[in-house]
Amino acid sequence: MAKQKFAKESITIMTEMVLPNDTNTLNNLMGGRLMHLMDISAAIAAQKHCNRIVVTASADSISFKQPINLGNVVTLRSQVTRAFNSSMEVFIEVTAEDIPARKKIMTHRAYFTFVAVDQNGKPIEVPELVPETPEEIEHFEGALRRRQLRLVLAKRMKPEDAVELKSIFNLTEK
Amino acid sequence: MAKQKFAKESITIMTEMVLPNDTNTLNNLMGGRLMHLMDISAAIAAQKHCNRIVVTASADSISFKQPINLGNVVTLRSQVTRAFNSSMEVFIEVTAEDIPARKKIMTHRAYFTFVAVDQNGKPIEVPELVPETPEEIEHFEGALRRRQLRLVLAKRMKPEDAVELKSIFNLTEK
Amino acid sequence: MAKQKFAKESITIMTEMVLPNDTNTLNNLMGGRLMHLMDISAAIAAQKHCNRIVVTASADSISFKQPINLGNVVTLRSQVTRAFNSSMEVFIEVTAEDIPARKKIMTHRAYFTFVAVDQNGKPIEVPELVPETPEEIEHFEGALRRRQLRLVLAKRMKPEDAVELKSIFNLTEK
Amino acid sequence: MAKQKFAKESITIMTEMVLPNDTNTLNNLMGGRLMHLMDISAAIAAQKHCNRIVVTASADSISFKQPINLGNVVTLRSQVTRAFNSSMEVFIEVTAEDIPARKKIMTHRAYFTFVAVDQNGKPIEVPELVPETPEEIEHFEGALRRRQLRLVLAKRMKPEDAVELKSIFNLTEK
Amino acid sequence: MAKQKFAKESITIMTEMVLPNDTNTLNNLMGGRLMHLMDISAAIAAQKHCNRIVVTASADSISFKQPINLGNVVTLRSQVTRAFNSSMEVFIEVTAEDIPARKKIMTHRAYFTFVAVDQNGKPIEVPELVPETPEEIEHFEGALRRRQLRLVLAKRMKPEDAVELKSIFNLTEK
Amino acid sequence: MAKQKFAKESITIMTEMVLPNDTNTLNNLMGGRLMHLMDISAAIAAQKHCNRIVVTASADSISFKQPINLGNVVTLRSQVTRAFNSSMEVFIEVTAEDIPARKKIMTHRAYFTFVAVDQNGKPIEVPELVPETPEEIEHFEGALRRRQLRLVLAKRMKPEDAVELKSIFNLTEK
Repeated sequence: MAKQKFAKESITIMTEMVLPNDTNTLNNLMGGRLMHLMDISAAIAAQKHCNRIVVTASADSISFKQPINLGNVVTLRSQVTRAFNSSMEVFIEVTAEDIPARKKIMTHRAYFTFVAVDQNGKPIEVPELVPETPEEIEHFEGALRRRQLRLVLAKRMKPEDAVELKSIFNLTEK
Repeated sequence: MAKQKFAKESITIMTEMVLPNDTNTLNNLMGGRLMHLMDISAAIAAQKHCNRIVVTASADSISFKQPINLGNVVTLRSQVTRAFNSSMEVFIEVTAEDIPARKKIMTHRAYFTFVAVDQNGKPIEVPELVPETPEEIEHFEGALRRRQLRLVLAKRMKPEDAVELKSIFNLTEK
Repeated sequence: MAKQKFAKESITIMTEMVLPNDTNTLNNLMGGRLMHLMDISAAIAAQKHCNRIVVTASADSISFKQPINLGNVVTLRSQVTRAFNSSMEVFIEVTAEDIPARKKIMTHRAYFTFVAVDQNGKPIEVPELVPETPEEIEHFEGALRRRQLRLVLAKRMKPEDAVELKSIFNLTEK
Repeated sequence: MAKQKFAKESITIMTEMVLPNDTNTLNNLMGGRLMHLMDISAAIAAQKHCNRIVVTASADSISFKQPINLGNVVTLRSQVTRAFNSSMEVFIEVTAEDIPARKKIMTHRAYFTFVAVDQNGKPIEVPELVPETPEEIEHFEGALRRRQLRLVLAKRMKPEDAVELKSIFNLTEK
Repeated sequence: MAKQKFAKESITIMTEMVLPNDTNTLNNLMGGRLMHLMDISAAIAAQKHCNRIVVTASADSISFKQPINLGNVVTLRSQVTRAFNSSMEVFIEVTAEDIPARKKIMTHRAYFTFVAVDQNGKPIEVPELVPETPEEIEHFEGALRRRQLRLVLAKRMKPEDAVELKSIFNLTEK
Repeated sequence: MAKQKFAKESITIMTEMVLPNDTNTLNNLMGGRLMHLMDISAAIAAQKHCNRIVVTASADSISFKQPINLGNVVTLRSQVTRAFNSSMEVFIEVTAEDIPARKKIMTHRAYFTFVAVDQNGKPIEVPELVPETPEEIEHFEGALRRRQLRLVLAKRMKPEDAVELKSIFNLTEK
């Protein structure tokens, strides 16, 4: 197995047209349907990084601000940001486009994590991720902080041990 | 419009059988499909509280620990925990059951928020929520803290203003 | 295996939102789609009673009076009414709700029967059902009559032997 | 509008392959999915008779004896048997075929009824049906008896008035 | 295995109603959805001819002239036209009907080819096809020319060897 | 409206995971399902070129050589090759990947054509396409020949007028 892989090797682009069954009574894409697409797109990016079967470990909080309409084209760009033993964080950026109206907006940014598993579902080690571009490096460096937040929120880490996380709150040692 | 409604008036139970197209190559329910079900179930609970069309505003972070298998029965219980002007927080608890094996486990707990809108998609006021049971009261009281976390994570509130949130980190005034 | 189970142990609630692909050109839920939901919901109730794989054995006649519209919330409540060797009768009650309009109506009542089978599809014995509430007792007592009607309609019982069934026609011995 | 139409003008053949999502854990077609197909196929036959939008009015009892497997080809043949003012009875015959195994069996026979409606959903008159073949005549003649059974079961006709129906029970006047 | 089978033995009729998710923003059936239906329908016809599992080998060019609307009834009639060792050509004719408007038009004619395979996916011989009606004979005779066109287009036959194909271009020996 | 657009402006990448309902009994992606994906992906590329609603006009012949398996990741890359008045030719290249097995193959190359239409479905002019790379130029130049083949096959052009097409058959003037 490769010991290291570049961030760019996992880039996955998914393009979908919003169909009637994806929409609510206002003819807007339902949030749950979008999360479903995010999960598939991000899982493929994680697979590309580790060449293994992967299972979703977590989805970070997502906020839905811009409605996406029936007939819009949704593009999801997913890329692994960092690997930790058997898990990988994936960043997903969603763009919605009303092509005839020439309107294109960046609608969502989300992080999902995945675990690589063998055929029996047991976790298995993955290659390290090597970021190259400034944006990849920024995602890579923030990954530790987001990971501590996930652990604290899942009550699997004590807040006082979440050294990286404290930086969100500008809490320097006093 | 009613000024107040009880938490119990919004309880929504959804039961689904895991079908082949819902599963990954390990025959487990895909995380994204489960988030799709959570969103529909929670949206119905929010609708019951406000008797309005609702749109998803956010999904809090979710962690997936227990795999749910093909053929399992998934039960989602959704209930509004608190209302804020035009928005509502909904708590969703997911149980998975392998009925022939007599195994039933609580697999997920998640919070989604929704906004009540009129026919043009403009936010509209909702009734206050009145919690009654100890569990409903606990959810109600924690809602403020979770809301501050959402605002901080979405960069719409400064961390130093998130008074309630700091309690997560046991950060009393120094 | 348990020798007896209570009727209440099999209660199954399923809640669904009517989506565009479920509807006909009048924007009403198609009858066949509703029967599909009834079958899944009732099968889960039967599974809960016997903790076995179950297969649909029959659906009693169903009449569709009230149209259910796009965007309505449909709730199906299923419960086993009586067990016979390897088969179970399930009662399904369907409610449709236009939540923004605050209209909720009981739209359908139906009976389906299921057979418990082993991994090879062979019928296998199920626990007796014990009814408790007056409504459960009424369903339990009517089950024999409905069963005879099914057998007569399927030409597997001679009408003159359908002792219980005759009561429908007020046919006392002459 | 035509005053009369022949039974053969409504014949509708629908052929479907059983896909994974249509099946239960034994890899057999779920009963509810089959009822869904029956409803669509029969609705098209009813449409052909009356050249109107139609809505399902009732499904008669159906028994499921033969399992239909994943990969089988299911053929539904639907035909209107008789018209009554604004309603039509449709007979559906289902055949399942395991083509590689050269096995073809007639698995189900069912009756559904439909009502012709205008754009506002109001019932509207349909042409008379004229049966021609011996089989069509037999279905035509039995339609009255089945209709009375439906009305009695739906508690919309008193059993003692169901003159035709009594023939099922060999109840000649005494 | 039968050495020969008649063309009529493979006739397959598929009837479908156009549902919301099958349509584009003009409420017309999407071309890709129709090709999906053609493929399933033609695969069943090919299976009927050879009583084997079949896989799609090619789809000839298809042109879409008539839009088919939401709520229309689409009928696909598929029939094997000729067999070649392990492959079969299937002719598919599509009719679209707006039943309430009494409009019925022949919308598409297409040819797909299939290969019969064993459980390991290896090609396997199929019976000869015997055409009977004038139309079946015409399809049978044209099959050779279409096959050469496919081979030339797939760059598996040199144009100068495509003797039959040249007749399209009225290119008699000079 | 822009008078000209570059070929690269229409590039559309679609990534999909092969799910159970997309497969035949050999667990391979069904040809019709793939054509469905090609059509959606190519329609989005055509929309990007003309900023209009588009409808499928034709699909050129496609041959299916490599089976694509359940769980594989399918990537479709679509790009407009040339514009003609109101129509556009789109080239689609399909790659299938078994990521855990590190196998990636180019499986299909296909051409679809689309027509830009206004809200009433009437054809409307599109910008010229400007190719830049050698590959884009090759596609652009071949487009005329493929167009003549489509017209001849659809019997809308006489073979002797298909000047460009004759080059396929190496038929120089004699």
